[in-house]
Amino acid sequence: MATPVIMVHGGAWTIPDNLVQPSRDGTKTAARAGYKVLESGGSALDAVQAAVMSLEDDPTFDAGKGSVLNKNGEVEMDAVIMDGQTLKSGGVACVQNIKNPICLAREVMQSTDHCLLVGPGANQFAEEVGIKKVPMETLVSDEAIRELECYKQYGNTVEDLFRQRGSQHDTVGAVAMDCHGNIAYGTSTGGITCKKPGRVGDSPIMGAGGYADNEAGAVSCTGHGESIFKVVLAYQIITLMKQGMQPQEASDKALAEMSKRVHGYGGVIVLSNDGQPVTSFTTERMAWAWAKDGALHHGVDPGEDIFENIVEEAK
Amino acid sequence: MATPVIMVHGGAWTIPDNLVQPSRDGTKTAARAGYKVLESGGSALDAVQAAVMSLEDDPTFDAGKGSVLNKNGEVEMDAVIMDGQTLKSGGVACVQNIKNPICLAREVMQSTDHCLLVGPGANQFAEEVGIKKVPMETLVSDEAIRELECYKQYGNTVEDLFRQRGSQHDTVGAVAMDCHGNIAYGTSTGGITCKKPGRVGDSPIMGAGGYADNEAGAVSCTGHGESIFKVVLAYQIITLMKQGMQPQEASDKALAEMSKRVHGYGGVIVLSNDGQPVTSFTTERMAWAWAKDGALHHGVDPGEDIFENIVEEAK
Repeated sequence: MATPVIMVHGGAWTIPDNLVQPSRDGTKTAARAGYKVLESGGSALDAVQAAVMSLEDDPTFDAGKGSVLNKNGEVEMDAVIMDGQTLKSGGVACVQNIKNPICLAREVMQSTDHCLLVGPGANQFAEEVGIKKVPMETLVSDEAIRELECYKQYGNTVEDLFRQRGSQHDTVGAVAMDCHGNIAYGTSTGGITCKKPGRVGDSPIMGAGGYADNEAGAVSCTGHGESIFKVVLAYQIITLMKQGMQPQEASDKALAEMSKRVHGYGGVIVLSNDGQPVTSFTTERMAWAWAKDGALHHGVDPGEDIFENIVEEAK
Repeated sequence: MATPVIMVHGGAWTIPDNLVQPSRDGTKTAARAGYKVLESGGSALDAVQAAVMSLEDDPTFDAGKGSVLNKNGEVEMDAVIMDGQTLKSGGVACVQNIKNPICLAREVMQSTDHCLLVGPGANQFAEEVGIKKVPMETLVSDEAIRELECYKQYGNTVEDLFRQRGSQHDTVGAVAMDCHGNIAYGTSTGGITCKKPGRVGDSPIMGAGGYADNEAGAVSCTGHGESIFKVVLAYQIITLMKQGMQPQEASDKALAEMSKRVHGYGGVIVLSNDGQPVTSFTTERMAWAWAKDGALHHGVDPGEDIFENIVEEAK
């Protein structure tokens, strides 16, 4: 029997001080939700889904409720989930009016022989499988409205800052290993503020924004989506791990390579198939948490690693 | 100065005997179109675009005119182009009523800071940049209609054959190196017959269906899209080449790995940054052609490699 592990992130960006505590709380809650599934013998896929749903439901994060707005002031969301045992995955991109895109992604994985459904076709599929539409307003936070207004007001002046340094809300994700040693990952996002309608970043793209393979481990990425996409960040890390590199070194190396080749910043949570959870980020902050052996670790600032006992904290 | 090379493919599948000659002619014409650009000092990006446009305009192939039909009897197309010097790319997925999706992909690369636009948002962008809509009927071939009818009639009986052995029309693509040693790739497709509306395969996804990096070379993939996506086929090949493996061995190895891990079949055209063009496929046939040093090579069956002098043949 393998030792179950769950890791989550709430995005790598310049998290402002007033959002540090909510980000910390939200990632801890999500890690606990995923760990509960694993502790009761649940699968890595179910744990990842539970953790990502928790993050999607928390308006602190740019996914599900709290998603940022596109240029037209609309919410368009992307999500993916992948099974490291079979390499099967399901992804959705540019879906609207869905409370939990990760659940729709899971349906794509399980009920179709496709990997990715986008736009109105993805929404049509949601109807077919009985995932109901929610009004867009229920997904929009005041913060997302302010962010779009700020972006439109300052335009290109802040564009570099926004796009390159991750100075806005970002993607959430989770990776897990269950007691059978099976591995999975999931990612969900509202994308980037003021994106063109129809824009898809790395998040729903296995290989780019994440990957899960029982033969190596799992990765979920966050940060500047276009940069992550260009260097196929997650698969780079998986490949280095397959070649025997330790997960921390592989993560640091791939993020450094991304910075060098395309001047992009981001962060990753990585779980090797021998159960090592590691984090790495080149942005100012990344909210993350992981649970294993009854212990919960979490952090936001570089080098930070706070330890709690899951049972005591949950009381 | 580098020696310019262009390679194209017209899809890896069970090409029926009656389509062998048209596929051969179409790939040769496309390789010539690309080579002409390179010979006059044009860029790898322009050569790739010219070659893919030629394939899109030929109804023999499943891209642009000749695209297969989705479950609703509609054409939804995907395309991508990538610059190996900057790793910038532009992709579109699920676009409708566009004569040459590769041109729209090029606009995404050049006129936005995004990598991928999908669905109605991609069509909206086409309007913004002045790419006009064409009636869907102008893209639909009799063969595509017959294929959908056949698929609907036999359903799951032929599904395995269709989806796994590549027994249907497939993706087109091109890779090129120009006289400055810059490398590019492009891919375009109508996808797979009877796909769900909104389905996106590997084709518009850099890393999965293709990749271009001046530091290694370029790859364009064809075959069972979901399998290629799952194993991030193109980036696998690029990674092996970066580690010093010869392009032929890297291509064969990655296709064998895909067959082993996810039982998927496909083909690739690969150009290393020292100018070696290679092909590899695990389907019954793949139509391909390449031009270099005034010579045109082409083939359809395994092991076939026919040589022609470009100048004489063009007379």
